Amino acid sequence: MSAVQALEPPPGATLLAEIREQPEALRRVCAHAADYARVAEALRERDLVRLVAHGSSDNAASYGVYAFGLLGGRTAMRDSISLSIYYGAELDVSRSCVVALSQSGQTPDVIEYVARARSRGAFTVAITNDAASDLADAADAVLPLDVGRERAVAATKTYTAQLAALALLSAGVAGRVDEVADGIRRTADLLAELLPTLEARLSEIAVSLAFVGRMFVIGRGPEYATAREISLKLLETCRVAAEPLTATDLVHGPVAAIDGLFPVWTIASADESLPAVRDATARAHAAGATVIASGTAAAEIEGASVRLPVPMPPLPVLTPLLSVAPGQLLAWALAHAKGLDPDRPAGLDKITLAR
Amino acid sequence: MSAVQALEPPPGATLLAEIREQPEALRRVCAHAADYARVAEALRERDLVRLVAHGSSDNAASYGVYAFGLLGGRTAMRDSISLSIYYGAELDVSRSCVVALSQSGQTPDVIEYVARARSRGAFTVAITNDAASDLADAADAVLPLDVGRERAVAATKTYTAQLAALALLSAGVAGRVDEVADGIRRTADLLAELLPTLEARLSEIAVSLAFVGRMFVIGRGPEYATAREISLKLLETCRVAAEPLTATDLVHGPVAAIDGLFPVWTIASADESLPAVRDATARAHAAGATVIASGTAAAEIEGASVRLPVPMPPLPVLTPLLSVAPGQLLAWALAHAKGLDPDRPAGLDKITLAR
Repeated sequence: MSAVQALEPPPGATLLAEIREQPEALRRVCAHAADYARVAEALRERDLVRLVAHGSSDNAASYGVYAFGLLGGRTAMRDSISLSIYYGAELDVSRSCVVALSQSGQTPDVIEYVARARSRGAFTVAITNDAASDLADAADAVLPLDVGRERAVAATKTYTAQLAALALLSAGVAGRVDEVADGIRRTADLLAELLPTLEARLSEIAVSLAFVGRMFVIGRGPEYATAREISLKLLETCRVAAEPLTATDLVHGPVAAIDGLFPVWTIASADESLPAVRDATARAHAAGATVIASGTAAAEIEGASVRLPVPMPPLPVLTPLLSVAPGQLLAWALAHAKGLDPDRPAGLDKITLAR
Repeated sequence: MSAVQALEPPPGATLLAEIREQPEALRRVCAHAADYARVAEALRERDLVRLVAHGSSDNAASYGVYAFGLLGGRTAMRDSISLSIYYGAELDVSRSCVVALSQSGQTPDVIEYVARARSRGAFTVAITNDAASDLADAADAVLPLDVGRERAVAATKTYTAQLAALALLSAGVAGRVDEVADGIRRTADLLAELLPTLEARLSEIAVSLAFVGRMFVIGRGPEYATAREISLKLLETCRVAAEPLTATDLVHGPVAAIDGLFPVWTIASADESLPAVRDATARAHAAGATVIASGTAAAEIEGASVRLPVPMPPLPVLTPLLSVAPGQLLAWALAHAKGLDPDRPAGLDKITLAR
């Protein structure tokens, strides 16, 4: 082994280290709870929250739709960046709050969107890991993630920190920041207990999934964000064509594509969505799919070949902070099983400057 | 051959007949232009359009986001049905207009969403092929598609009619119904010319794609709806794991999954999104993907193995009424090449009553 090789971490070491840092990352976001409460006051006067982001940050934005709806009583939407930036739509944003999510704070069209919306009367908030970034400069208010530099190309700790940030900001609209910050800290403790067990189990399971070329990942409600994020991890680190779907999406067409070579990963929560998720999974199983069940209600999915349960957090809306972990660790373990280096996905850089 | 077999149409005949009916379907929607203009008046007093639908109708709703933004100057969002129906979020909808899309008018949770939103002060509009359906009863106003019963499980003429309906309703907000109805009629003429040529070409091309198990379909702006709809057609009739992505989505991760067995279908429009679409496709091609290029700017995508251009309609925002046709016809032809019957996808019924 040459001296240069000896200095390089083994494949996946960076990704794994950052997966393990997540409990601490959640606590660091909560250390800024007062900032979130203060900025949330400005949101109370606004009717509509417009979330803008790309990649994993956009998956976190999917969670934001539910966090703002359930904790903050506000309508939130993942806004189209292209509609205003490329196509020049002239929309009234004067009663809107824009929440822009970017790990680096360098995403060009997110910055451009924020600058334009601000000049047209929106109140703009940047949630970023770099409080000195161009995105932070462009916005009215900056909320730090403060989770330390993320080095792996596949985001993990930034994603969970963004979920925590969105939960805190939403809670602030309803004056519930302290309660939710306390819930996130207790969720961080649960995650710290969960991760070592999952890491060992997924290393074993990954070998049996090395043949998989395509997969559906099913989640509904707040867990649709988890389905999107697990799919993206598998796509970018393991070359699995994983597609996120809601339970209802699945039965409206894609179920017809399923056969024995098409596993379905179901994220099942012990909440109002469970009957629909259970029924959709049963149809996929009947069509021949191997079923992987995760989430707080993993035990309630019939016919699952693999079950990856996560514990119930203090508040149901915080479940996605835990339920993404099995997918992150499968991405890490499956890449290893397939001989891929998840720290160096083909054709990707950490910061995507494409528009 | 038994007498019973002789009475059954050959595989795919129903789907093909309805694909061919689309120019007439577009004209039939325009025959109701005055109804669309009248209902659009009620939208002028509302700030936010909430689109609700499942399956192909939800793909049409993706187009609605751009139609309302570009033609009507209104913010429109695909709303979460589960957020209010399953999770009981208490959101202010009193300044919203709900536009619900359902071919049958029988989708249970769409009906429930509309009834709840109406009781909370939203103005509700049903766009459906059955003006006597439960959905029509639940809404304040009904706008007919009037395209005749759709018999194929895979929606085609309903989808394009829904696009036309959304264009007319959006245009009505800006007092432009007559201009847009005229544009749709001229687009119908272009589609009638285009379909026979495409039908012959795609029958030839399909054979070479019979091995494909997974595919990305790239579209940006108004063509993201087309990418979603083409993907759904390939999933439900051909068992291809086709995933829709925006050009920006692709370069934020999924590009790492591409290899020579992973074709990329790019829908390229001669508009502001073309540079981003062209760059993303070039990266996919460099990673080994076979590229299929369609759309009004198919000729401008470098390295494409197959080009399926469509003509420019009178208004750029109407392009999706044409650009979905190559995907519909590939679904029909590819199912035939693979020995599948696209009129009888496994595990699907025409009306999905699942919630």
